[in-house]
Amino acid sequence: MNTPSYDYDLIVLGGGSAGLAGAIRAAQHGKRVALLEPGELGGTCVNVGCVPKKAMWLAADLAERIGLASAMGFDVEARPALSWKELVIHRQAYISNIHTSYHKRLDETGVVRIPARGHLLDAHTVACSDDVQYSAAHILIATGAHPQRPDIPGAELGLVSDDFFDLRAAPAEVAIIGGGYIAVELAGLLQALGSKVSLLVRGSRLLERFDYELTAQLAENLRQQGVRIHFDYRLRELKREGERVRAFGHDGPIDSVFDAVFFATGRRGNSRDLGLEALGIGIGEHQQVEVDEWQTTAVPSVHAVGDIAGKVGLTPVAVAASRRLMDRLFGGRPDAKMDYDNVASVVFSHPPLGAVGMSEEDARARFEQVTVYHSRFRPMLQALANGTQRSLFKMVCAGPEERVVGVHLLGEAADEILQGFAVAVKMGATKAQFDDTVAIHPTSAEEVVLMR
Amino acid sequence: MNTPSYDYDLIVLGGGSAGLAGAIRAAQHGKRVALLEPGELGGTCVNVGCVPKKAMWLAADLAERIGLASAMGFDVEARPALSWKELVIHRQAYISNIHTSYHKRLDETGVVRIPARGHLLDAHTVACSDDVQYSAAHILIATGAHPQRPDIPGAELGLVSDDFFDLRAAPAEVAIIGGGYIAVELAGLLQALGSKVSLLVRGSRLLERFDYELTAQLAENLRQQGVRIHFDYRLRELKREGERVRAFGHDGPIDSVFDAVFFATGRRGNSRDLGLEALGIGIGEHQQVEVDEWQTTAVPSVHAVGDIAGKVGLTPVAVAASRRLMDRLFGGRPDAKMDYDNVASVVFSHPPLGAVGMSEEDARARFEQVTVYHSRFRPMLQALANGTQRSLFKMVCAGPEERVVGVHLLGEAADEILQGFAVAVKMGATKAQFDDTVAIHPTSAEEVVLMR
Repeated sequence: MNTPSYDYDLIVLGGGSAGLAGAIRAAQHGKRVALLEPGELGGTCVNVGCVPKKAMWLAADLAERIGLASAMGFDVEARPALSWKELVIHRQAYISNIHTSYHKRLDETGVVRIPARGHLLDAHTVACSDDVQYSAAHILIATGAHPQRPDIPGAELGLVSDDFFDLRAAPAEVAIIGGGYIAVELAGLLQALGSKVSLLVRGSRLLERFDYELTAQLAENLRQQGVRIHFDYRLRELKREGERVRAFGHDGPIDSVFDAVFFATGRRGNSRDLGLEALGIGIGEHQQVEVDEWQTTAVPSVHAVGDIAGKVGLTPVAVAASRRLMDRLFGGRPDAKMDYDNVASVVFSHPPLGAVGMSEEDARARFEQVTVYHSRFRPMLQALANGTQRSLFKMVCAGPEERVVGVHLLGEAADEILQGFAVAVKMGATKAQFDDTVAIHPTSAEEVVLMR
Repeated sequence: MNTPSYDYDLIVLGGGSAGLAGAIRAAQHGKRVALLEPGELGGTCVNVGCVPKKAMWLAADLAERIGLASAMGFDVEARPALSWKELVIHRQAYISNIHTSYHKRLDETGVVRIPARGHLLDAHTVACSDDVQYSAAHILIATGAHPQRPDIPGAELGLVSDDFFDLRAAPAEVAIIGGGYIAVELAGLLQALGSKVSLLVRGSRLLERFDYELTAQLAENLRQQGVRIHFDYRLRELKREGERVRAFGHDGPIDSVFDAVFFATGRRGNSRDLGLEALGIGIGEHQQVEVDEWQTTAVPSVHAVGDIAGKVGLTPVAVAASRRLMDRLFGGRPDAKMDYDNVASVVFSHPPLGAVGMSEEDARARFEQVTVYHSRFRPMLQALANGTQRSLFKMVCAGPEERVVGVHLLGEAADEILQGFAVAVKMGATKAQFDDTVAIHPTSAEEVVLMR
């Protein structure tokens, strides 16, 4: 199955998680692979996404726990000062280690890394920004996505999530425009790390793809932390006011000017200038590359994975989809493809919110018989310290056999609790099988197997 | 099925978790129930076990995180002073709330609470310490267990785990005698909360019922926190030395005298003076009441659950066993009994250690084909703060289909991660089903579905 007429078996455009995973898997199948990436390896996730976000979330979590410790008898200030500069040094050192490990991995597997952009000349040819051309049997587009600014006057005065990672101190007053996961995560982080945060949400709820009850409790938890939430807010304009920015909504200016305004108003695929349209490859309304269930475009030798391919914007999904595509193309597994059902995801809000499977709303739309269980509680640490944060766990079951079709967790440790239950849900667990599992006491996780 | 010739359908001796669960379940089945408990409700778990232990563990966890916060840029002392008195006030308020909820629950369900001890006169009669006698169709023994001191000179100079909860300050230097879960938990707590701890272990390893590799890593983690561990140590004698206590081992005195010496050298059932032997009920070598797989003694109307019945000494197991017994006796479910397979358990060490299913050693003894996977890593928070704690996760699979027969987790959040995987293991999950579950990134839990 050699393809000696091409320079490579595979050319990958983009060195983010999806591109790297595909390049390495193809190389492991013995293929000649070139990876084009003009910037740092790791893409959004490692450089301006999951990883630095989690680092800041961990710091915010520490800040909250120091407050609880102060209430419980430790001789610490409830809201101690934080040197962001020092925190950022630790964060960037961690990221730098990841870069090093990626370079090592590419070396080990023999992937050729080309530090250039590329665009497609035809179904098998890529022209690099340094004017060299390479041909390949297959081309994988994995160029990711970027934050989108709304089309309003003064939009240039706002920041986007990438800019958050350039901050070296907490802005005193911050507005975040949006109600999705990036908005909610930024709000929790900044509030815990010293800012006074206003969350300005276009719709009437947070996190529209998650179960409503949990998102309502999350809003309450955020309010208890001091975040001001304005629902049904439509931003019309931003105006400079000295060093600060004033936001104007549909019903006039709100009561604050801000030191920083962040747009968390969606992301768009990095599909421009790749030469895709000329080849007849479809581009969607969010500038994503249109692919079939096999991750392949209208051109059979051109594929796309990760944020550029739309679908579920999660790193582990992108990685899994990319590996399966390579197994299909080069690994002798013609049926390999990503299963997008029951993908678990966690929002690193304060507290975290995680879900696998269907919301109650979705389940009721799809099944005749739906049963729902709740556990609403105060985790022991919050109770000991008279904290304000509440946990809400919810299970959605379908049919007379009560198959568990959704597990929804809001609260301390939800991020770590969910993974095991995701395995059980994917296996088709029933409520009875959850009940038959002996609880681990005292934990938050035990609430999931003790729901009545 | 009424039994009008008896005063009650059920008399329960002991108001701990197991006794309460059984009394309430029987009452829910419409039965007349008396609960004899001379002291506080909740038994060991609520009063001198799981609950106050977890509260102290949470405080110890906060202490550790304050150290990490200090390293990451927060303006706090790495080891701030702690007012144990204030901490204990918070802890006891939490416990008091549990007592209140138990009293409410007994009231609601109509269980008659008698604040007295009892002993059996015959298979259906209990004499109370206030000289009143009651008869019942069934008697449930749930009197729990107590810590055991070794039979050595000076044993009276040592403390036991119950005494830990009377402390109002950290003893400066502490010796803990033992290598089981109570020893390991006390060592971690006291070291984090201000003591200098020596762990004196009779055997050559910690936690003999857990997987060896994890317990070896735990010993290393404890050492990194400053705990001194002496294996193969045989205590011969304790002697008073002023206000302090000197420990003498088999090869002479070790290099420290201690402000407190704790025995964590096993527990014995509270089976004395219950009149059981006279009825022909067997008492085991740890003073536990001998029961069959249905929790019933040699006398068909006398049953035992919880610590007094030996077996797995875990509160959720005791509760589940007690409820199933009541479902069998009074709930029309003649086959109901506790399944002791795949019971998950967590040791609240620093960091926590959890396991469900078989250790590698046990699996190799039982199955011909055993495959083992590891993930050894530094959690992100530890890496960011240059912390010393390492996580080690391990999966044990059996047979060509790689059924997962053991999941072993040591590290931050292991206590919360395990529960969901326990459901999956009990369902008979295979390694492939773990692999097919998309990871939640970045978490520690994802390591369990990413093992290679």
